[in-house]
Amino acid sequence: MVSAPSVSSSITARLEVQARPTAVSDLTTAIERAGGIVTALDVTASFTETMTVDVTCATRDADHAADVVRALEGLDGVTVQRVSDRTFLMHLGGKLSIESKVPLRNRDDLSMAYTPGVARVCQAIAEHPEDARRLTIKRNTIAVVTDGTAVLGLGDIGPLAALPVMEGKAVLFKRFADIDAFPICLDTTDVDRIVDTVVAIAPAFAGINLEDISAPRCFEVERRLRERLDVPVFHDDQHGTAIVVVAALRNALRVVGKRLADVRVVMSGAGAAGTAVLKLLLAAGARDVVVADVDGVIHRDRPGLSPSLRWTAEATNHRGVTGTLRDAVVGADVFVGLSAPDVLTGDDVARMAPDAIVFALANPRPEVDPDDAARHAAVVGTGRSDFANQINNVLAFPGVFRGLLDAQSHRITDAMLLAAAEALASTVRPDELNPTYIVPSVFHPDVTSVVAAAVRRAAEADGAGREPRAATGEIAAVRLREHG
Amino acid sequence: MVSAPSVSSSITARLEVQARPTAVSDLTTAIERAGGIVTALDVTASFTETMTVDVTCATRDADHAADVVRALEGLDGVTVQRVSDRTFLMHLGGKLSIESKVPLRNRDDLSMAYTPGVARVCQAIAEHPEDARRLTIKRNTIAVVTDGTAVLGLGDIGPLAALPVMEGKAVLFKRFADIDAFPICLDTTDVDRIVDTVVAIAPAFAGINLEDISAPRCFEVERRLRERLDVPVFHDDQHGTAIVVVAALRNALRVVGKRLADVRVVMSGAGAAGTAVLKLLLAAGARDVVVADVDGVIHRDRPGLSPSLRWTAEATNHRGVTGTLRDAVVGADVFVGLSAPDVLTGDDVARMAPDAIVFALANPRPEVDPDDAARHAAVVGTGRSDFANQINNVLAFPGVFRGLLDAQSHRITDAMLLAAAEALASTVRPDELNPTYIVPSVFHPDVTSVVAAAVRRAAEADGAGREPRAATGEIAAVRLREHG
Repeated sequence: MVSAPSVSSSITARLEVQARPTAVSDLTTAIERAGGIVTALDVTASFTETMTVDVTCATRDADHAADVVRALEGLDGVTVQRVSDRTFLMHLGGKLSIESKVPLRNRDDLSMAYTPGVARVCQAIAEHPEDARRLTIKRNTIAVVTDGTAVLGLGDIGPLAALPVMEGKAVLFKRFADIDAFPICLDTTDVDRIVDTVVAIAPAFAGINLEDISAPRCFEVERRLRERLDVPVFHDDQHGTAIVVVAALRNALRVVGKRLADVRVVMSGAGAAGTAVLKLLLAAGARDVVVADVDGVIHRDRPGLSPSLRWTAEATNHRGVTGTLRDAVVGADVFVGLSAPDVLTGDDVARMAPDAIVFALANPRPEVDPDDAARHAAVVGTGRSDFANQINNVLAFPGVFRGLLDAQSHRITDAMLLAAAEALASTVRPDELNPTYIVPSVFHPDVTSVVAAAVRRAAEADGAGREPRAATGEIAAVRLREHG
Repeated sequence: MVSAPSVSSSITARLEVQARPTAVSDLTTAIERAGGIVTALDVTASFTETMTVDVTCATRDADHAADVVRALEGLDGVTVQRVSDRTFLMHLGGKLSIESKVPLRNRDDLSMAYTPGVARVCQAIAEHPEDARRLTIKRNTIAVVTDGTAVLGLGDIGPLAALPVMEGKAVLFKRFADIDAFPICLDTTDVDRIVDTVVAIAPAFAGINLEDISAPRCFEVERRLRERLDVPVFHDDQHGTAIVVVAALRNALRVVGKRLADVRVVMSGAGAAGTAVLKLLLAAGARDVVVADVDGVIHRDRPGLSPSLRWTAEATNHRGVTGTLRDAVVGADVFVGLSAPDVLTGDDVARMAPDAIVFALANPRPEVDPDDAARHAAVVGTGRSDFANQINNVLAFPGVFRGLLDAQSHRITDAMLLAAAEALASTVRPDELNPTYIVPSVFHPDVTSVVAAAVRRAAEADGAGREPRAATGEIAAVRLREHG
């Protein structure tokens, strides 16, 4: 399983090249021999003896990019003048801007958007705090909050280095759900300080998306914020993953003609994502779930269980399975991995039940090689974009928050998460469903709206939203009449 | 001094009107008799017997708007169907949006702006934190932080009701200095919690603009934040005001042909703005300053001085003046009021020195009626937009932060504030200067760039900025070569 060259690791080299008939083909040949893929080539200047050539190529990673550059430097008559990295160029200056929605052309505009006119808007909110959802950015704004302790596969890189991911998340919120999301990168890893800080900055936000906070602190942070805030708090690494796994499993079970209530599920991983997936699977109706972690299968008699693992032991493994993960998967219908690379082999998958379903979501190296798994399982999903059935949180979080904001919801419940999972599963039509298409593309045009509508309905059914009021355009008139 | 009708308090009434020859003129007459000013009138639908008319008019305030509506309701054959308020309509949904600067058209874009490509950008920042100024929004992003305790003239209205002002401030930062400013409304008034919260969220910001935090907490918040953060912290209510007052005074003294070092200055107000103005006046070279507060002139022997007033007593009043403000202004060249309405009369101004300068900045009601003051003083300035010489912070803060960001400054110093004041004063050319034009319009095209350049130079002279590095486009190449 060697990764292919990717645009995400794409470089542009500016070369001075001696003008001769094979000049360009020599370049492309050298890049291809080094394993790169040429995606663009421009002659930007030409002279009698030489040419300036910009060549862009996809590489596997930074080391491979360096190999490609060395291959170019080794060519006769070629001088490498500059190498730039498309991903870094895209990031220059950051990925977000804050824009004004109102014009400031003259003093009249200023007198309404700022002083003195704004004072009346402030007074209206002071008298009716619920009007902040109409008269301020709170209506559509959420915070993407991290402490930088569990960023992608990079681990604890700190809040500043986490910022590009949080900006990226905000870009996704805008692109897929038209939500204004702002990154809050916290210079503390202390649970008390994280909670106090988020509570202190909460007034302007209608929702909190926690991101890349390491377990077990993330559970405590989320629990306490939910207690203290009147807006929904959603840890995407937990619940976003859970929604997409449950949706994908629903559709995978349709493919193989099994029912969630009947199947044996084995999970690897009892961290933040694993625990959230487990809870949502149980809420969705799974009955026979066995969870293993690095110390093997979790059961009630295992010594030294933490409170979270104790809960897992009580809620799962009713057959009293013990031993290793590899023991547990024998005869299982479903494997869900949210743990570490290469904990299973193709042979292990072969010992699962017929028509097995394997979700190996460790990233970038899955729990089992997906190609090996696919030789024995009926449906295979991973977290990677270069295999079929990518389990990608982008399918969940934009629609979930769109629905929560539309409902002006004060909270988020398991019923809403389950509604999101079922809505997401429903976006794959019966005539589209097959072993390599159990979840839609992230660019599927209906995903956000379908998920959002389901979450909104669930929030309204729950009574978690605001009372409906007069149409927004009327508010000033209402206020004015009260004064009159 | 009755305030005039203002667009900032403008309403649009939708009326059903009986179709008759005087229908429209009856409306405008009724509005004008009630003291409103008609700014637009549209017949939006017409029928045989009736018309639908939208009439927009400026009023003085909400009570006056209600009077105007009642006047319309009192007309024969007129039914008021709906009244909307232009300022409220402008605020629906808030005044800011967060936009993506990068396209997400397909999976390639996604792989660069988000995973997996973004991981390399995160790693680069983890290894070289100073690169966050190049590769993230930190380069151009500041926080506008308030606790909602001293909002405009409204006082302690809380963080949520303060949000429209903070959004407006962010709009001004964008409009005048192309800065991305985000409002942080704090649900705490405790100094320790404010400081801890701002420190915790600071990583993503290149500057902190404190706003509308009441004295004396604002001094302590600013002092402690400046100690703990490596980005500039600027309390606009203090330093923005100080910069514009000093700039205006420079030019007013040019008008009357006096020098700052020679004049007698009397100030009313020793709160946040007053203290900041005092400090900058002294830094600018003022030698004879006497400050009064609600208890009269501040001098060393006055009992019960707080630490801040003790400092003021030591730094000012070398002639040992005692008594009331009205005593102190006799013979003074300059009066600067940052206090309360109507503490002086025209007669008091008449007792000042010849060619007196009066800045009466309490808002909306100044320390002395500006028309009365103008009968005796050579130059009069206020905080109001409906008199000449508006002392408006908008003249300072956009350029100050633009300069600080351009210099990548870690701090802000009195030298930078003074440079800003002198630069602002210089935007009024000698051939433009006169008693009613001592500061430029907020829409003057050069204000921001001139102030920004001066602050940037001062920051660079101070060594407060970052070391210059390779041009931004080179960063990826630099990094790649290091790997190669």
